[in-house]
Amino acid sequence: MSRLVDNLFSDIPAASAEEIVDILVQTRTCRLERILSFGQATPPGQWYDQSQDEWVVLLQGHAGLRFEGEDVLELGPGDYIWIPAHCRHRVEWTYPNGPTVWLALHLIPIGSVEQR
Amino acid sequence: MSRLVDNLFSDIPAASAEEIVDILVQTRTCRLERILSFGQATPPGQWYDQSQDEWVVLLQGHAGLRFEGEDVLELGPGDYIWIPAHCRHRVEWTYPNGPTVWLALHLIPIGSVEQR
Repeated sequence: MSRLVDNLFSDIPAASAEEIVDILVQTRTCRLERILSFGQATPPGQWYDQSQDEWVVLLQGHAGLRFEGEDVLELGPGDYIWIPAHCRHRVEWTYPNGPTVWLALHLIPIGSVEQR
Repeated sequence: MSRLVDNLFSDIPAASAEEIVDILVQTRTCRLERILSFGQATPPGQWYDQSQDEWVVLLQGHAGLRFEGEDVLELGPGDYIWIPAHCRHRVEWTYPNGPTVWLALHLIPIGSVEQR
């Protein structure tokens, strides 16, 4: 049996009209995603308000992330941040001339699993 | 309030006699670690035999990973792999002349949490 090795930076198109999300790990309490952005941003006036904590790292490209009431944070390769549940934020911009590669870990509270 | 952004590739010494493990996220059901290797390998004849599933990506450097009974897999930047619980494996080598940066996600079964 040969073991499957994948690469985070492979199978990336040069451009895409939509962000591309691949689920790398999914359990009942966490989901790890590779997210590819190609200049996309959160639509004007919209905010993410997630029910789950999230840890996110930018691995390639650049992006501007804003938390409500704060200045834009410019993120480059290797930059990571913790986004608590219900902490409103938005992606102001991503690099327009090539892919921006994110790895996002969404943490699903055990309580919400047990109540299912 | 200003938001804390850290970087996976910062605070890395040029060399270290031991691997360096930083816990980035810890919940009851998962633990995300940054692991820095500087030429270290699993001691001869030893195998990892973990009770938890693990997803691991190599982000910088190079390493040779062997699963029991298989050939060595050479991993480079961006390569990731799923290591099921109790799947015996060892790190045969890591790049000797600089840091190898890993991100490892350990998945703790809910059952083991509930039994505590």
